[in-house]
Amino acid sequence: MQALLIVAHGSRRAASNQEVAALAAVLAQQSSRFALIDYAFLEMAAPNIATGLQQMVAKGAQQITVLPYFLSAGNHVIRDVPRIIAEFSQQHPHLAINIAPHFGLAPGIADLVLAQAGSPAKI
Amino acid sequence: MQALLIVAHGSRRAASNQEVAALAAVLAQQSSRFALIDYAFLEMAAPNIATGLQQMVAKGAQQITVLPYFLSAGNHVIRDVPRIIAEFSQQHPHLAINIAPHFGLAPGIADLVLAQAGSPAKI
Repeated sequence: MQALLIVAHGSRRAASNQEVAALAAVLAQQSSRFALIDYAFLEMAAPNIATGLQQMVAKGAQQITVLPYFLSAGNHVIRDVPRIIAEFSQQHPHLAINIAPHFGLAPGIADLVLAQAGSPAKI
Repeated sequence: MQALLIVAHGSRRAASNQEVAALAAVLAQQSSRFALIDYAFLEMAAPNIATGLQQMVAKGAQQITVLPYFLSAGNHVIRDVPRIIAEFSQQHPHLAINIAPHFGLAPGIADLVLAQAGSPAKI
């Protein structure tokens, strides 16, 4: 069973974390590929990444894609998230985990930014 | 003259900040609405927001849209960015500054997340 874990930074502000939860709920409705879609936070909020992964394993996930929901590849994306995933992976050798490129690399970001700024793209 | 300032968090990692600079460069090429598009960082990297705004004013910007390039509305989006903008605005009463909704609210985010996770949306 294939699962997708959205990993966000996490905030002290509950409403911020709820945005991520709401996104995961929308994704779970839209996706036909992933039988399970959930979210976790690097810090400041629950569940943390290891707990999020553990919950997916408990629900029967055999392949997990982790999507770092970050706009640019700072130390969190380059160092912290991969380290946590690697540790979990070592403890669960039969689980296939892969990390998708961080969200900021998604094609279409520029168009979305212009739309959000109220500006139509030239083309 | 209308300008767009992309405000990102900023990272200790130079390559992360360069992603934001590259995005601003792409946007500047695509947009017909904004005569000037640039970027600034809340912390950890230069230019900071006040400097970014000041540079736009020096280049003749009369209306500036600030787009908080953040995925969710944590304290940075709710408190820090607006406070800095308000302070700058008070010092420049003839300048029209508006803050766009933070990037994470952009319609289309969910589709982009699924695409980045390698998953086609159902519809």
